[in-house]
Amino acid sequence: MGQTIVEKVFSSKAGKEVRAGDFIDVEIDYAMCHDSNLAFVMKALEKIGCKETAMSNKLAFILDHSAPCSNEVAANLHRQIRNLAQQWQVNLHDVGEGICHQLMLESGYIRPGMVVVGTDSHTCTYGVLNAFSTGIGSTEMAAVLTQGRLWFKVPESIKVVITGGLPKGVYSKDIALDLLRQLGTEGANYMALEYAGDGITNLSVEERATLTNMAVEMGAKTGIFAIDEQVRKWYADLGLNANGGVNPDADAIYCKKVEVRAENLEPLVACPHSPDQVKPATGLREIKIQQAYIGTCTNGRLKDLQVAARIIKGRRVARGVRLIIQPASRKIYQAALRENLIDVFVAAGAIVLPPGCGPCVGTHMGVPADGEVVISTANRNFKGRMGNKNASIYLSSPATVAASAITGKIADPRNFLPEEG
Amino acid sequence: MGQTIVEKVFSSKAGKEVRAGDFIDVEIDYAMCHDSNLAFVMKALEKIGCKETAMSNKLAFILDHSAPCSNEVAANLHRQIRNLAQQWQVNLHDVGEGICHQLMLESGYIRPGMVVVGTDSHTCTYGVLNAFSTGIGSTEMAAVLTQGRLWFKVPESIKVVITGGLPKGVYSKDIALDLLRQLGTEGANYMALEYAGDGITNLSVEERATLTNMAVEMGAKTGIFAIDEQVRKWYADLGLNANGGVNPDADAIYCKKVEVRAENLEPLVACPHSPDQVKPATGLREIKIQQAYIGTCTNGRLKDLQVAARIIKGRRVARGVRLIIQPASRKIYQAALRENLIDVFVAAGAIVLPPGCGPCVGTHMGVPADGEVVISTANRNFKGRMGNKNASIYLSSPATVAASAITGKIADPRNFLPEEG
Repeated sequence: MGQTIVEKVFSSKAGKEVRAGDFIDVEIDYAMCHDSNLAFVMKALEKIGCKETAMSNKLAFILDHSAPCSNEVAANLHRQIRNLAQQWQVNLHDVGEGICHQLMLESGYIRPGMVVVGTDSHTCTYGVLNAFSTGIGSTEMAAVLTQGRLWFKVPESIKVVITGGLPKGVYSKDIALDLLRQLGTEGANYMALEYAGDGITNLSVEERATLTNMAVEMGAKTGIFAIDEQVRKWYADLGLNANGGVNPDADAIYCKKVEVRAENLEPLVACPHSPDQVKPATGLREIKIQQAYIGTCTNGRLKDLQVAARIIKGRRVARGVRLIIQPASRKIYQAALRENLIDVFVAAGAIVLPPGCGPCVGTHMGVPADGEVVISTANRNFKGRMGNKNASIYLSSPATVAASAITGKIADPRNFLPEEG
Repeated sequence: MGQTIVEKVFSSKAGKEVRAGDFIDVEIDYAMCHDSNLAFVMKALEKIGCKETAMSNKLAFILDHSAPCSNEVAANLHRQIRNLAQQWQVNLHDVGEGICHQLMLESGYIRPGMVVVGTDSHTCTYGVLNAFSTGIGSTEMAAVLTQGRLWFKVPESIKVVITGGLPKGVYSKDIALDLLRQLGTEGANYMALEYAGDGITNLSVEERATLTNMAVEMGAKTGIFAIDEQVRKWYADLGLNANGGVNPDADAIYCKKVEVRAENLEPLVACPHSPDQVKPATGLREIKIQQAYIGTCTNGRLKDLQVAARIIKGRRVARGVRLIIQPASRKIYQAALRENLIDVFVAAGAIVLPPGCGPCVGTHMGVPADGEVVISTANRNFKGRMGNKNASIYLSSPATVAASAITGKIADPRNFLPEEG
């Protein structure tokens, strides 16, 4: 009887064949903590009395949620984190380097078949690199830092079959939103989403990362891709090889199968106040917006900025709209500078933020006012997500956000792309 | 008996010859309010019962102190300001356009001989364009908005004679700090600083603006320059002519004369916690820094960024230092993009903020931790100025900040500049 990717990863780690539903205790290959939750992790470490870590050479601390700091509480937390990072010889990514999940993909910490945990629900993103990665709580993380191990129930997997190519103006974010429409926010609770089908072949790792990133919006423990040319290319670009790649067996058992016909998709938008309230953009064209936001661990990558710039170039942000652009990492920011994308955004009247989480998490740098409407490339639109529970958040692809910023209302990006597009 | 520039401006406005010490009531030519103080101005307007303004076509509202907003209180204030701006047909400069004082210089609102007021102490900056401009309180501003007039006691003037050329690595900020060393923070209380001497001839308006900006640090009502080729050029670049230029009489009476021999200056630093605690940078080389900040209405202009980039290019920000760069306006940001200065900063590891006040005023985007040391190009280093009263702030030129960011300690920029200077 065949195994899913996740079953294979955990079997390898456990040193015995395990199946969905089995409870196992495994060594953690890499751990990630960000500033926002390190406050709680450090408190738990103190309670436990942990002075040394079992994870020192496989641990990253990333300062991204309050970067740069908006107040002295955050600043003092950062100082404390830097001190611990130095004491434990942790890989520290300081203010301005970028969002934790993007840095984890870029930094070469991940390898195929790894089991990775992080104190953030979107840790599931790294499944794009053929690893099992998932978010855990701060107390659990304190235990991982102390012991280097954690227990899991091996998750069942949903097979997500993506077929066909994406039409003009439709992107992997629209696939993610279609999945949310099909599964709902609890449709994959404690499961893994395993992506397959000919529709993924041409999706790059950065496009796929939008899918794995949003797996948790359906309740999934992780989203995961098999090893293929795209994944191998990502590792090769980092100077790493993709040895130990894990592919599912042809007769693996899935608890469910979901299909997305990419060629039939149109630009989609998740409406307030849940990411599964998905509707076509064309039906929302009367909705005025006051803020538009392109960035986040979901859609702040170079391809996202390129698509947005293609729509924005030579146009102006609509009167009464604030367009905020935030590259997901310094590396992406530098590439965007080289390609003159930042010039395009600033010339159009956009506000470009330094790499980090920023307005997505409502900590600072773009909190909306009461009654305002925001369209964003983020993964969540819960009430209060951006720091004000009296604002409304719509979620879409960078193209749809860009088109909306130009229009002043939610807009269909297909109307802004040249024919060959 | 001759008159100073300020006496001439007020004589013209009053329609009769006035002298220092006279009380007059004059029409206000232009008014500026920023987000931070508009909260109080709007409260006062409500108390007065003011529904219409006498200033609508000569009034700018500028959102710069919390831009983009760090919390919903600021966001709701911005919304309220936008509504009033629309109702009154005010020139609104929204989030991301830049710092009020820079925008006032760039936007063509100022003319020679004008009397301008703003709800910010550094409104004195616009004296660089041969206008009398000064900061007023929020309640006073509510009265100006209602009546279009304000009373003044015509200030006495100190003649600031600047002679000679600046040596390599020394800038107009060092002149400003030398003046603070000579006069102290109360040495020009309720006076005007009128700049003269052959040393100003080659200083551009943007370099001079550092001087007028810091006039208030000595207690002055304003800092003011006569009309000359540099000022005419600034107006011409905006498509305006400098008609009505006001120059002092040769036999004008000054209450005091101060001299700065530019050619004898060296890089200076104002030490915590007052801008008049000025010492040579060379004597402070053992002081470690954790944050360096280049921006603000004092030194966030293109020339400042050019000088900083010259020092930073090809080097890396020292480990343990956060270098924050913030252009003073979108126009400056765009010019810096065109000249690849932003690339230089980001490649060195700097954090580039969108145009605005940011960390200078401690509202957000760079609040230091307890015990941290910051070197900044701002105008003030009072306890708590950057949002944490347990941090220490040193003030210097952009060159000195850049050299310090590279070194990790306060550094002399002359060691980082090529011989040709």
